[in-house]
This record gives sequence, C-alpha cells and structure tokens, in this order.
Amino acid sequence: MLNFKVLATQNRSRVGLLETAHGTVHTPAFMAVGTCATVKALTPEMIASTGTEVVLGNTYHLMLRPGAQRVHDFGGLHKFMNWPHPILTDSGGFQVMSLSGLRKITEEGVTFASHIDGARYLLSPEKSMEIQRLLDSDINMAFDECIAYPATYEDTQKSMRLSMRWARRSHAAFQDKPGYGLFGIVQGGMYRDLRLESVKCLMDIGFDGYAVGGLAVGEPQSMMFEVMDYTVDALDPLKPRYLMGVGRPSDILGAVARGIDMFDCVMPSRSGRTGQAFTSHGVLNLHNACHRDDHGPLDEECSCSVCQNYTRGYLHHLVHCKEILGAMLLTQHNLHFYQNLMQQIRMHITQGTFEDFYRSFLDRYAHDRKM
Amino acid sequence: MLNFKVLATQNRSRVGLLETAHGTVHTPAFMAVGTCATVKALTPEMIASTGTEVVLGNTYHLMLRPGAQRVHDFGGLHKFMNWPHPILTDSGGFQVMSLSGLRKITEEGVTFASHIDGARYLLSPEKSMEIQRLLDSDINMAFDECIAYPATYEDTQKSMRLSMRWARRSHAAFQDKPGYGLFGIVQGGMYRDLRLESVKCLMDIGFDGYAVGGLAVGEPQSMMFEVMDYTVDALDPLKPRYLMGVGRPSDILGAVARGIDMFDCVMPSRSGRTGQAFTSHGVLNLHNACHRDDHGPLDEECSCSVCQNYTRGYLHHLVHCKEILGAMLLTQHNLHFYQNLMQQIRMHITQGTFEDFYRSFLDRYAHDRKM
Repeated sequence: MLNFKVLATQNRSRVGLLETAHGTVHTPAFMAVGTCATVKALTPEMIASTGTEVVLGNTYHLMLRPGAQRVHDFGGLHKFMNWPHPILTDSGGFQVMSLSGLRKITEEGVTFASHIDGARYLLSPEKSMEIQRLLDSDINMAFDECIAYPATYEDTQKSMRLSMRWARRSHAAFQDKPGYGLFGIVQGGMYRDLRLESVKCLMDIGFDGYAVGGLAVGEPQSMMFEVMDYTVDALDPLKPRYLMGVGRPSDILGAVARGIDMFDCVMPSRSGRTGQAFTSHGVLNLHNACHRDDHGPLDEECSCSVCQNYTRGYLHHLVHCKEILGAMLLTQHNLHFYQNLMQQIRMHITQGTFEDFYRSFLDRYAHDRKM
Repeated sequence: MLNFKVLATQNRSRVGLLETAHGTVHTPAFMAVGTCATVKALTPEMIASTGTEVVLGNTYHLMLRPGAQRVHDFGGLHKFMNWPHPILTDSGGFQVMSLSGLRKITEEGVTFASHIDGARYLLSPEKSMEIQRLLDSDINMAFDECIAYPATYEDTQKSMRLSMRWARRSHAAFQDKPGYGLFGIVQGGMYRDLRLESVKCLMDIGFDGYAVGGLAVGEPQSMMFEVMDYTVDALDPLKPRYLMGVGRPSDILGAVARGIDMFDCVMPSRSGRTGQAFTSHGVLNLHNACHRDDHGPLDEECSCSVCQNYTRGYLHHLVHCKEILGAMLLTQHNLHFYQNLMQQIRMHITQGTFEDFYRSFLDRYAHDRKM
C-alpha cells in the first residue's frame, strides 16, 4: 500500500507526494534508470546530488545477473547498490520482448533465452512478483505483454486481454504491505476502445497506481498525446499515473499537461555516455569541434556542479579522448537537467503558471527534436 | 624554486614537506597519474578524497590533445581539469619513445609521429619546457631520452650523455619562479659508473629535485634496488628524490627504505579499470566467481568510502557486467589504498618504526607478485 496525496492542480496537471517505505517522492517525478543495479557512470552520491528521488531497476536484467535471490541475500536492492531511497522495478515484460531470444508466450507466461548466455528462463505474473519482492522494490509493476508498434486491432486486443489476465494474477500474487505498492499497466496500443477496456479492467482490480504502457515505441508524439488524452482522464484521480519509458523534455511536458505524475527514460544517462548534453537551449553534441575553445559552461543557467566547475572545452576534450570522466560528468549534468525540469514543472503547477512555462520552454528549446 | 624540508629520517628513509605554488605535498608521496587531464574514472573530488595531493600530467599526451597553448588559454591545467592542487608534468621524453611512431633522435631533440593521427611534432628540451610552462605545472621535468632495457654499456653511455646535455638546455630554458621547480633525471641504465656520472652532471647544474629515470622498465626488483643503493646516496640530501613510474607496494617500500620521496604509477588506476583491488592481504581479482556471494568489503581494514558502502559481491557484479561504476569504485579504493600506504610509511618513519612496518607489510602482503 502506497500513500499518494495530490497537493495542487492546474487543469489536468498535478503536483503530489508519493510515500514509500524508503522515502517520499515529489511528483511529477523523473526516475533515473539503474538497469543493472547501477545508474551507469554515477555513484549513488552523484545520483542524489542531481535531485533524483527514485531509481528504476530492471527485473529482466537483475533476474539474470546477479539473480533476485542473491540480491535478497544481500539485503535487497537498496543495500546491494547502496541506494537507500525509493526504488521502482519494472516487471520484466517489456525487456523480455525487446532483448531476449527464443521467446514463447503462453497463458502461463513467457519462456525465453537469456541474451547473455542463452540459458532458458520462465517469467510469469507470479514469478515477476516474487522477483520484485526479493529485490525489495518499493513500487512493483504488474507483469504484462508489450507488443510491437504498429500492430493490428486483433493482435492488440488479444495481447491486451492477456495482459489484463496477467494483471489480475499479478495482483493476487503481490504481497501487500505498508510503503510497498503495485501498479497496473494500461495496454491497448493506439486503439481507444481497447485502452478504455484496459483501464476499466485494471480499475476493477484496483492498484496503488496506474502506468500507461506501450507508448514511446516509435509512434509520433501527437499519437502518444492522443492516447493519453483519452486514457489518463479515465484513471482513478486519487492514484499516481506513470508513463513508462518517456522521454524527451517535450514529451514529459506534454504528458504532465495531460495528468501524468511519473516518468523514466534512459535518455539523460545514455546521451551522457555518447557525448550529448541537455541545456536550456537544446541539445549539444560535445563531439563537435566548435566546443574545443569554448570557455563557458554547458548551460549558463544550470546550477549543477558540472556547470560550476567545467568548461565545454574541457568536456569536449574528455569526450574526444573517450575518457570515462566525460561520461560521468555529462550523465550527472543531464540527470540534473531533467530533475531541474521536474522541479520547475512542480513549482509552476503549484503557482498556476504551468501552461506559460510549457510554452516558453518549447520556444527556447529549439533543438529538442535533434535527439 | 621549490621549498623542501626534511622533517624526520630513519636510516635512509625520510619524511618531508614539498611546498609548491598550488599547495604542500607530504613526502614520501604517491602521485596519481592523470595522463589526459583526468585521473581515469575519478572526479577531482574523488581523487582528493583518497588523500592524493599531486596529480601527474603527461606532456606527450597533452601536447597532442588538447594542445599546450589551448590548456594555457583555459588558465592552465589546474583550472582546465578542476584540480586546484599541485601538478607534476613529465617531460614527454619517456612516452615519445614508448608510444609514438617514426621517431628520429638528433642533438636538437626528437621528431616523431603522433600515435593518434600520425601528425609530425618536434620535442626538444626548449619545447618541453615551453609546454610544461603553458600547462602551468608546479613540478617540471627535464627532457631526457629513456632507452630500452636491456641496453649495452656503449648505447647507455651515449644516451645518458645526450640526456645530460638536454638537462643543461632544459635548465637554461626553464623560467624559474617561486613555487615552481625543475627536476633533473638521472639516467645511466644498470651501470654504476654511468649513474654516478649522471648524478654528478645534474648536481653541477643544480635542480630543485632529482628523479631516477630508466628503472621499472622490465628489470628485476633486486636490480632496481641495487641501482638505487648507489644512486640515491649520491644525490643532494636537501632536495626531493623521485622514482619515476614506480610501482607495486613492495617497490615503493624498498625505494622509501633507500631514500626516495616521490612516486607515480598507473597501477592503482589501471588495475581498478581491469577489476583488480589492492588490499592489506594482497591483490583481489573481482572477476573471480568466488566473490559473487561475499558480503564483506574489499578490505576489512580499509577506511575508504568504497569499503564502507559496498560489498565484494556487488563489486564483482559491476565488474562482471562491465559497468563503469565498477571502474570508478575500484580506482577510488586502489588510490586510497596507495595513499594510506604512504600515510603509514610517513607515520612509521616519524616514529622510527619504518623497518618493522616494512617487514610486517611484506609478510602479510603475500600476493604482491600476482599483479
């Protein structure tokens, strides 16, 4: 059971507090992706310094390495990775589809071959709940099937209904306790009636929060926003809403405007490792020679320690020389950029100025699409 | 001009203070190697947290990328890399021999092709002094030739005498000022009379400190110690002595016992990146599956933040998954291990118990040679 309070709203946007066993999360929240029990290239101190309050662990990766029982024996994922703050784990459903080989989907679950060594595993709703419990995840996700985009109506319907039967089994298998919660995941692809059928099914079961799955899978942003327009309003307004795997700053702003409370994305960390930096005027590619003699910071308006202590010229040098420190500093800055964006969003919703902020951000942030 | 004070001695070992423009160095000192304007995988905060007081920059690498004039335009190497503490730079002599292609050595200097893009450069005593001045190095090294081991007496003599003529030119070109100094480098291979001729030549010129070069190039440890036995005693006892590129803990202890004050080596950082950890009982290979379920720290006796917060099992997991954080944490621990060793050495010399410490360290440190 998770406690969620909505503190302020502006139109459909909300500011809230989500209380978990390992601390309170300010929403709208951006969660840093920590796939293999580490947010790549950052120490936990560096993660916390960015303002990050939740780290996401991936069930699929962690069940393969180091194994969920092993993480449990180390005292859970928080202790194992030295992150004492809230953790959300996905169910493994998405990544078993995108990463593993030799998948076979049955009513029972998914049998698959590890992408690491080919060993065969079974993931089912019950198994996913057991793994997430062993990881000691604060926020657990129901096991679902996530089909590729585009998909026919018939395939999407079949897949969504399987996900809903799995959601019911996930809910039955989840061991509820204070500070720990289970989220259901809305599926139904780009089809309105299927999305609404999925929402109704999940609300009948009753979850601590609701995620919108199956978006940001290659569809245009306008289509993603359209799906949210009819999906989010149908969800329980007293529960947190999570848009999985999203996204670019403009995606996040548009989703917050439609009532989403939580996000996760590899973008700030992955782009950091490939020499990209988010700034208030767009995305910089630090590989470019134009930064070589630039004595200014990544972003004049950024208060992070990277912008206080390092020049674009130095960061270009690190990226050019493929130095690990380049990945470290750019990831730290990018995650700070995202967390600062969330903090601004929360402040503007509270002050009733979110719509203005949204517009003015997009006007300045010209290079968003370059990513 | 650098100020050096010997505070305490035990037999030939000494404890001292070396004052530079960017701060004071406690000797015997271990300097962290920061080849390309970064100690690989560590932020400056992490470097300082290990107790490191000096970072070594490589003239050869920095002249190629980002270029010495560019570093100067950024306010010098301290500002460029955000390391406000002392910096020592080598002369480029060693690495031009080991890394570059198409070398041609003349009386004037060395012309060579960059190992990065094949572009042609000249390094000479005057050029090396200019580069180190542009880098704003506190401790500058004379330009020398470092020949391969083994080498004949004739070749070694010829090379050493060229290095001595270059040392004189380095000294003439060095722009002396308070807090900045120039070290001469003793050459002469494994030949006693050549080493002593080199010492005499350098002492006649007069430097702020003296390095012993051309060791740790593949010769047995006993031979390295033998060279030090006759070389170090001949050096000015009022000046700091630096053994370049050394080494393993047992090398350092043996060299301190013979009167060496300063060291640098890639070992703690490079081994950190390849999954090796130094401990008070020897070297651990974190790749080994025996660490998988180990809930203990790397080293029970270590006070570093890695040993306070992470298990061997977690570090094994990071190394196994090739996570950047594994390189970061192991490098931090290893550098802390080295700095703790230096701190112990300084304490025991001051207390007059260094010889006992040396013996008992080697007894426990059984796996030293495994590296």
